[in-house]
This record gives sequence, structure tokens and C-alpha cells, in this order.
Amino acid sequence: MDKSVITITTDFGIKDAYVGVMKGVILSINPYAQLVDITHEIEPGNILEAAFLLKDAYEYFPKATVHLVVVDPGVGGKRRPIAIKAGKFFFVGPDNGLFWPIISDNKDILIVHLTNRKYFLEDISSTFHGRDIFAPVAAYISKGVHLLDMGVSINDPVRLEIKRPMLLKNQIVGSVIRVDRFGNLITNISEKDIIECFGRLSGLEVEIGGRKIREISKTYSDVPRGQLLALIGSSGFLEISVNRGSAYELFGKEAKGLKVYIKPNLFDS
Amino acid sequence: MDKSVITITTDFGIKDAYVGVMKGVILSINPYAQLVDITHEIEPGNILEAAFLLKDAYEYFPKATVHLVVVDPGVGGKRRPIAIKAGKFFFVGPDNGLFWPIISDNKDILIVHLTNRKYFLEDISSTFHGRDIFAPVAAYISKGVHLLDMGVSINDPVRLEIKRPMLLKNQIVGSVIRVDRFGNLITNISEKDIIECFGRLSGLEVEIGGRKIREISKTYSDVPRGQLLALIGSSGFLEISVNRGSAYELFGKEAKGLKVYIKPNLFDS
Amino acid sequence: MDKSVITITTDFGIKDAYVGVMKGVILSINPYAQLVDITHEIEPGNILEAAFLLKDAYEYFPKATVHLVVVDPGVGGKRRPIAIKAGKFFFVGPDNGLFWPIISDNKDILIVHLTNRKYFLEDISSTFHGRDIFAPVAAYISKGVHLLDMGVSINDPVRLEIKRPMLLKNQIVGSVIRVDRFGNLITNISEKDIIECFGRLSGLEVEIGGRKIREISKTYSDVPRGQLLALIGSSGFLEISVNRGSAYELFGKEAKGLKVYIKPNLFDS
Repeated sequence: MDKSVITITTDFGIKDAYVGVMKGVILSINPYAQLVDITHEIEPGNILEAAFLLKDAYEYFPKATVHLVVVDPGVGGKRRPIAIKAGKFFFVGPDNGLFWPIISDNKDILIVHLTNRKYFLEDISSTFHGRDIFAPVAAYISKGVHLLDMGVSINDPVRLEIKRPMLLKNQIVGSVIRVDRFGNLITNISEKDIIECFGRLSGLEVEIGGRKIREISKTYSDVPRGQLLALIGSSGFLEISVNRGSAYELFGKEAKGLKVYIKPNLFDS
Repeated sequence: MDKSVITITTDFGIKDAYVGVMKGVILSINPYAQLVDITHEIEPGNILEAAFLLKDAYEYFPKATVHLVVVDPGVGGKRRPIAIKAGKFFFVGPDNGLFWPIISDNKDILIVHLTNRKYFLEDISSTFHGRDIFAPVAAYISKGVHLLDMGVSINDPVRLEIKRPMLLKNQIVGSVIRVDRFGNLITNISEKDIIECFGRLSGLEVEIGGRKIREISKTYSDVPRGQLLALIGSSGFLEISVNRGSAYELFGKEAKGLKVYIKPNLFDS
Repeated sequence: MDKSVITITTDFGIKDAYVGVMKGVILSINPYAQLVDITHEIEPGNILEAAFLLKDAYEYFPKATVHLVVVDPGVGGKRRPIAIKAGKFFFVGPDNGLFWPIISDNKDILIVHLTNRKYFLEDISSTFHGRDIFAPVAAYISKGVHLLDMGVSINDPVRLEIKRPMLLKNQIVGSVIRVDRFGNLITNISEKDIIECFGRLSGLEVEIGGRKIREISKTYSDVPRGQLLALIGSSGFLEISVNRGSAYELFGKEAKGLKVYIKPNLFDS
């Protein structure tokens, strides 16, 4: 167990020493931990962004990986510090909705309100629980300490309101929820949603910001360079992209939040 | 010793391969080193910024950690390459003031001018001593080579001029020295300074840029969302923040360097 | 072999979870891999930039290091996934020219078109082969799987057109190909080119953007603070710099691509 992976996801950025310090704390407790940064560029305080990112990423890691997530706008206030065992993974962070997509997806789940100060740093600041509480707890979990030794089981974790697409009769209405580095617009419409609504991926047209895309492509190069397309992205959600370009540049700052419609393509199908 | 941690702090940024190459050099010498990035986003050549950051971070790491710091505007010139043992930690980098806060804080100290080319790469460029001198030296220290095998002891390290706050009769005058990722303004006034001057943290008001803050809070959520506050930050210095917002946005580019006054709050106390 | 280093170079940025997910995939296959980021800030789709960066960096790593490079604008299209053994190093990525500088530099070389799906993830997306093909292949190579078990040998890798400087009679005409974090302008003129053309580094003047530099310096501090200079940079190419300043700021956005001339300095030599 000593060698297990600890991933770190924060909104701390990479300019300050905050993340480095958390790693120092972890390695002081478990020198064998294998540390992996997911990202530290979550928009400050954006719990929803972190929750989505984590949900897409967590299952690609080895069994017993501890996912440490510190996006904690309420640090020092009343929100509870928690640790979770969900299936074969552990999670540590504030109880503010960050873990709701994982909690709601897993039946085999244990959530513990972290109350045992034995597993915290001795001095606890009121502004940096990432260092003082969450990093040491993650390190102890990676060494095999049981969650129930660290606090008390709870069953009322904070929920996260997630905007789901509307699956209507012969139409889906969703929206763009994230823009990635390449300018791909990632929607909240999953492949599963599309199959559920239409029974197929072919013969469907996508509309976004007044532009029509005649079908859902398999890959970027299905369309000419520079052309707008829609495809199922690597995490199973509909993405709007431009082959060798950026859909974000096309739609600009309004891209995030744009409505996306899927309908049967009456002429082509 | 082989498994000891090496932290890396530079102003190299993350766009070029400079940091990656340093890691390659280290792992070629000590494949078991545990590498941790503190930051590579120090402002180019800003020795003071790096010195403060390092001082805040270094003690959170395990015993025998080697802190490798390359902010080296004088590379290739006359400044000496040095290695330091201070208490239970090691430091490697240029002798330009970077390590002065650590040197002046520690009694148990050994400073060595690195002169033994046996521990450098064979070819030494005049522009990248991070790769050619500091990375290999850090790797050899992490393998247990003694500092005195690597050069000669010196006792005249370059000092760093650090602007300390003025502790007057019933008033402290300090200034903002750093802005973090969240827009928190970090001052050079420590909790210790405040206690020394006033004997307490309560009943004190803070003034910055013409704005008055009526007391020093314990945590962000002591004030309503969007309100300016002052608190003792996670490294023990007074910070000016906005609850769930950014103090930097409030004060703009002049924030860095702004004078900060602490006085008794005559009406409230 | 299990402990060998895997470096990762991509254009994925550090905002999304793409790189973290690749690391999760690798560690699920080889928990002992030592992961090193070279950079994730390659300009999206810029194969040339990645190829140059990799060439400068790869030899500083330990024997048997696997260099995983995913700059893959043609993902999901016809380009082949490949793995390479060149000298004592391995390389994994798309066959789009990324590895051409390494292939053309090494005689002892084996290139394999990756066709054996046993070493891929089970489900292969059409947009993220970094996760589905390249990361697992790199992990298996680091565990000692032979390249020829993973596919078939090929000898027609995609070439990269590299703009070489012109070595004329008593003059070299090159250009700026990259700007680093410090604003140094890195040219395509190597020290070797200069020696080949003139037989020396001294007594030569450099011209760029209408400005003359009277000689090639050894190090930044050979000239006064703020002055323009030319020197052989840490990877063996002529660089245009400003001592304690930024040459990029001097020349602005046109810096990249600027012509650079080297001629004998008739007055000084």
C-alpha cells in the first residue's frame, strides 16, 4: 500500500509554493507515495469545474489511488473536511460538492467526516487546510490507515447541482460547459444521452450559436481543415471542434454556456 | 539517503525544456531521487521573490531534502556556485542572496563554494549552470556525498536586503510584498511583529490604500462575501484579502508595494 | 528495467486533465515508472517546435528512458502510431515528423508501426491516442516489452522539413526559430556551422533586424546590463539576448523568423 499513487487537483495555480508545500507534507509522512498532478489551474473556487474534471479522470488510475482535491472557497468556515472510499479509490477534500458526481455514481461508498486531529498537522491554520488537514490525511490513507480511524461516517454529503441536458421527443437541448486547451467546446450531452433519445449517432444534426453541423463525425479529420464539426470526445461527451483549429475562436467568449441542439437530419438520413 | 527528496525552484517557466533537462541530469546520477517542483514561475531574475518563497516552503519537507534553487541572473559571471547544509536540510544554487533568509535563521550551518568539478557535468556552458553544475551537485548530495568533498567552506555568503516593517510606538508600517494566485496581498508584517508591538491581535485596525479594515479576522468567512479583510495567512504574515474575491482586483497593479498600517482600533476595542 | 524513466512532452497544456490521465494509465501498467514532464506547453499542433525541444533534451536522461511525445494534430486519421529505439533511448508517439531529428541523427535505429492492440487500452477513442495507445505502449516498453512484439518494423518514417541556415562564402544567413521564457532568441545556426564556415568564433559580427552586434560573447555579463549580445546558448545554437533583459521585448512579435547574418568583423579582427 505504501507505494500507492496520490493525485492532486487544486485551484492553487503554479506560481506560489502552495502545491509544493502539500507535497512536502505528504512525503514527510509517506516517502514512497507516487505523486501525480492532475491540474492546479481550476478556476479559483470553481467547484463544478473541479468536480467534472475529477469525474473524467479518476478511473484511469491504479487501484487504491488517493485523489486529493482542494478547491475550497469555504476554508476556515463550517464546511466539513471529508475522506471517501468509493469502489477501489479514495478521495480527500472539503465537503462542498466536489465529490458529488463520484458519490452519486458509486454504490460501494463510505464517507467520513475527518475529526481525528492525530492525522492532521499539529498547527492548523484557518486558510490552508490543503497543507494542514487534507495532505496529511491523504498521506496516511496511502499508508493504509482506515478511514473510520480518522473520523465518523456520514451520509449527508453536500450535493452539487449539475445542469443536465433536456431529452425531448426527437430533440436534445444541452449546453457547452467547458472549453479545453485546444478550443474544443465540451457539452453536457453524453453519448449515452444521444443513444437514449434517438437510438443512434448517425443521421443527426447539431446546432450551436446559429450554425448547423450536418452530422456527428467520428474524428477531426472527417471534415476539411478549418471546418466546424461535432464528435463524441474522449470522455464520452459531445464536443464541438474545428479540425486543426479552435471552435472557441469561432464563438468567442460566449462559447461557454451556449445552447446545443441535436435533431434528426431530415435531408440526409 | 538515496531516496531523499530534491525540490526544484526556478524562474525557467514551463514552456521550455530547461527544467526537464535538469531532472534528466539528476536521475542519471540518482535514479531513486524523488523530485518535487516548488515553482518555475519566479519572475525572471527576481531573487527576492524566490528567497521568500523558499523560506516559507522548505521546512515542510522530509529531513535531508535537497532544495535546488536556480534563479541566476548572473550565470556565467563571477558569482559563486554554493551548497549549504542548514539544520536538517540541504540547499544548492548560486550565491546571490537566494539563501540569505535561511542562512540568517539557522545556527547550525555549513556553506561550501562548489569548486570540485568531479561533481559537475563534463562540459560546462556559460549560460545554464542549472543543468551543468547545480543539478548534478544536488543529485550527488542526495546520494550522500559530503559537502566538504565538493568545495571549500566559506563564511561570507551574499546577503539579501530585506525590507522589514517599522515597529513604531503603537503603530506598524509595512508593505505588500507579494500577490498570490487568489489575489491575496501578502505583507512583510508577521504575526510575531504584531504581537511584539501590541501584545495582541485583537482590537487592531489595518489601513491600506486609503481603506480601513476594522479588525484582523481569523478566516475569510468572518466577513460577508465580497468584503475586504485582513488576516494572518498560512505562512504567518498579515494578508489583505477579499472573501471569495480578489484584493488584487480591488487595488490593481499598484497593490504590490502598497503601504500597510496597523494601529489600535480606538472605537471598537 | 521497471524503474526506468518516462518523459512526457505534449501540447495538452496544464489546465485540463489530459496529462494526468495519461500518467494514471502509465502507473496502472508500471507502478514503478519515474515520470518526468518535459513540457505540455508546445503550441497546439506545432510539430516542429516539439521536435526541436525533444532533440535538445533527450540525451540528458538515463539509459533506457522512454520519451513519450504527443503532439498529434492528425489523431484519429491515417498517421501511424510508432515506437522507436534510437541508441540507448526509446520514443513513442505519432509518425508525423516529431522524431525526424532523432532518426536522422542515429544509425542504430529501429522504428515500429504499433499494430498489436494487446498493448493498447481496450477502448480506443478517435481523439485521444495519448491516453489509449501511446501512454500504455510507453509503460509496456518501460517494463521491458520488446518493440517488435508491439508491431512491425518500418523504414519510411515521416520526415520533417527543417530550415537550415545558409553557409555562404564568408557569411552565414540563418533565422530565429524559437523564443524562450527569458526572451532569448534562439537561431538555427549552430556553433558547428560557424566553425565550419569561418574556422573560429572570434572576430565575427552578428546582424539582426538592422542591429549590429560586434562579436559573439561567452556569457551574458560580457556586456553591460541592458545591452544586446550574441552567444552560443546551452544547446549549442547561436542566441540573441539582452544581459538581464529580454531580446524579445526589443524586437517584438516579429522576432520569430527574423533573419540573422554572421560576417567577419573587419574593423575589430
